[in-house]
Amino acid sequence: MAFKVGLLGLGTVGTGTVKILLDPAQRNPLLKDVVLHRVGVRSLHKPREVDLPPDCLTTDLAAIVSDPEVDIVVELIGGIEPARSLILEAIDHRKHVVTANKALIALHGEEIFEAAAEAGVYVLLEAAVGGGIPVIEPLKQSLCANRIQSISGIVNGTTNYILTRMQKEGGSFLDMLEAAQHLGYAEADPTADVDGWDAADKIAILASLAFGERVRRSEVYSEGIRQVTTTDILYADRLGFVIKLLALAHRVTPPTAEPDQPHVIDIRVHPTLVAKGHPLASVNGVYNAILVEGDPIGQVMFYGPGAGAGPTASAVMSDVLNIAALLTVERGNSAMVSATVSAAVSAAPRSDAPPVLDPLLACTYHRYCTIASMEETHNRFYARLQANDQPGVIGQLGTCFGQHGVSLESVVQLENTGDRATIVVVTHEVREGDFWQAIGDITALDCIDEVANVLRVL
Amino acid sequence: MAFKVGLLGLGTVGTGTVKILLDPAQRNPLLKDVVLHRVGVRSLHKPREVDLPPDCLTTDLAAIVSDPEVDIVVELIGGIEPARSLILEAIDHRKHVVTANKALIALHGEEIFEAAAEAGVYVLLEAAVGGGIPVIEPLKQSLCANRIQSISGIVNGTTNYILTRMQKEGGSFLDMLEAAQHLGYAEADPTADVDGWDAADKIAILASLAFGERVRRSEVYSEGIRQVTTTDILYADRLGFVIKLLALAHRVTPPTAEPDQPHVIDIRVHPTLVAKGHPLASVNGVYNAILVEGDPIGQVMFYGPGAGAGPTASAVMSDVLNIAALLTVERGNSAMVSATVSAAVSAAPRSDAPPVLDPLLACTYHRYCTIASMEETHNRFYARLQANDQPGVIGQLGTCFGQHGVSLESVVQLENTGDRATIVVVTHEVREGDFWQAIGDITALDCIDEVANVLRVL
Repeated sequence: MAFKVGLLGLGTVGTGTVKILLDPAQRNPLLKDVVLHRVGVRSLHKPREVDLPPDCLTTDLAAIVSDPEVDIVVELIGGIEPARSLILEAIDHRKHVVTANKALIALHGEEIFEAAAEAGVYVLLEAAVGGGIPVIEPLKQSLCANRIQSISGIVNGTTNYILTRMQKEGGSFLDMLEAAQHLGYAEADPTADVDGWDAADKIAILASLAFGERVRRSEVYSEGIRQVTTTDILYADRLGFVIKLLALAHRVTPPTAEPDQPHVIDIRVHPTLVAKGHPLASVNGVYNAILVEGDPIGQVMFYGPGAGAGPTASAVMSDVLNIAALLTVERGNSAMVSATVSAAVSAAPRSDAPPVLDPLLACTYHRYCTIASMEETHNRFYARLQANDQPGVIGQLGTCFGQHGVSLESVVQLENTGDRATIVVVTHEVREGDFWQAIGDITALDCIDEVANVLRVL
Repeated sequence: MAFKVGLLGLGTVGTGTVKILLDPAQRNPLLKDVVLHRVGVRSLHKPREVDLPPDCLTTDLAAIVSDPEVDIVVELIGGIEPARSLILEAIDHRKHVVTANKALIALHGEEIFEAAAEAGVYVLLEAAVGGGIPVIEPLKQSLCANRIQSISGIVNGTTNYILTRMQKEGGSFLDMLEAAQHLGYAEADPTADVDGWDAADKIAILASLAFGERVRRSEVYSEGIRQVTTTDILYADRLGFVIKLLALAHRVTPPTAEPDQPHVIDIRVHPTLVAKGHPLASVNGVYNAILVEGDPIGQVMFYGPGAGAGPTASAVMSDVLNIAALLTVERGNSAMVSATVSAAVSAAPRSDAPPVLDPLLACTYHRYCTIASMEETHNRFYARLQANDQPGVIGQLGTCFGQHGVSLESVVQLENTGDRATIVVVTHEVREGDFWQAIGDITALDCIDEVANVLRVL
């Protein structure tokens, strides 16, 4: 049985994908049934790392998604358009789709999944989160019996690389960003990574899978790592923490809630102080890790390379092979039915109803969850303050926090220069709105020069 | 659509499984279609943690596996018999099977998977390795495009708990074993755990999935943790290592090998010195972790609770739901075919051919891989020697190792008491046979009292 792939895009990940397809030895035997049919590129004449038959390449991407011979369209061109239109067109032609395009899915997932459900095709996206790390499929299948409570992850390699080097070498954000750009770990325009947008795309996708409801990407709070300084990293270290850009989602709805009410989800991306003993604290460099907490499993963590041609291609091809496996079943069984009732079936009009999809693999969420407003979420905070070095400052701070119901875990005066003092406060878990009201009052205190930075603590 | 489960065994994991089935709120909606039909137990009158309708319980396990209403048999009684016969009987009645029984699968997998292939049913076993950690399904599906090179894992919670406490508290093996037994982390007869048999069962299963060939359980070398002393843990620590019981398998066959030759696999279980920075080094207590290396993914690690009612039940129920999902597709599509060609199909004789199975989920390996003999494997070694504290001892040791081609990474004299010295040797990677020949000669040296312990180094 042959399954024909139409590939859109032959960049880094596309090339990695073709390498697997052209070298099936010692991989899953099903790979031998998967045929690279067409590859859509921008230029036919660019030199390529892989040897493709010349008639395989085309610049006509629209022709690939409507090609009657193509079973599976693999979209690796990235960006919103023309990726969105090509995927919708492919679905309309009843092609299964594999994509690594997190931004597109986070933004237009609803439209794409609805079209796919109507056409009876799969849209799989293992490569969209965590590069090669299996996490989408485990969430859909291996953890499907759990009531998922939370997901916390390091899902952006660029920022983790920058923070790790800031931590280990004491370099500034801008220096380490430049180093990352030099090594190809950060783009020329690093905004999507360093401002947390990419991580927000990914946590929106993960939360949607974990909680079984749609997440509006625009409602996901995100804060990047530009304001993290080496001073904060140093102080965090002294207090027993490392600073990581975490993508977080947890279910606020209690298990006893009415099932007809949408879930309330607390979801955000921000730099976070993580205690050194925590499993995520030792995830360094471009590695990613996703920690899932559920009932009854407890905590499981998936760790691995979060980007790169090879790992991402591994995820893309696992989706392709999974679709090929499902098509093997579908075609095998209809061939058998045909053999049994051959004359009748071939004579009968072919049903136009879409085939039934695997309910664990198809994404058919019909409602949106409610996103808790940041003000109402509960967090621990780290605040670094510049104050006059005079008796009673800590007392005034404590009183001010106390008036807003913010209970403190520690207040440490870490450094004195002349008559100025640096004070670091770590709070217990408090309502976010209360904390910011207290900070507002504290900023107005005479003894306080500046609230130099505020970060959240896991 | 309803899917009926027949459960064999209502011990810890069985009870955990029933709890999920009876409480589907906020879990995958497919769970609501799964019905607990019968539960087979030893005694009807034992008090139970879960409320089951009385007519659900039976002591007649054979009746469950042949019950025409049962779609999926979940085997949680453990042990070889009657588990083996009941599973074969269930398969013979075309029931899908879910099992957590690693010993049975490691020993009789061939017989069971052959029967399942013939009957066209799935035998899924996520719970057999790593408790709740998704690893079997990721190996079958998410990593299926990779050429897997190696698997290294901490897959036995009991021994990891004992070693972690020996490391942290300096207690002896026997004291910590007793503590583990007291807490229910070790059985009254701890042999299967502490001698590495359980880990050997698990690595045999993982290697078979990773390399796509059968592994003869009897050929898996295993060494337990009884001979690990606090002295070794202390010396390892000084050299920058922790000691873990690792289950290891790697493919010796080069990627360029002829495809018609079975793979050569190096597979074993033994206490191992692991460098402190290695991802497996920080896996402590009853946690498990499995590190998979493949091309092109690189390294991925799966981490989580390796045992316990909740985690193991999570894995069991994920298998049940995956089968229910596949049955949803199968039944949905045949209903559609029937609707299209209704009269013809219902009149036609029903085919007796088994349905086509998902080739990624069904285990259909037809040949055995070749297991490399331990003598021919390559390892780094740690050896702790008691010697006379006299000039020239290290020279004699070095010469002796050198004569057998064993190259040394470090030789450290760690302690002197009177005229006796403790010497710790760490070798580079050497042929195992050569190392043992050198050790034979060293034992015969006048200056050496004793080769106190030998452990392998990752």
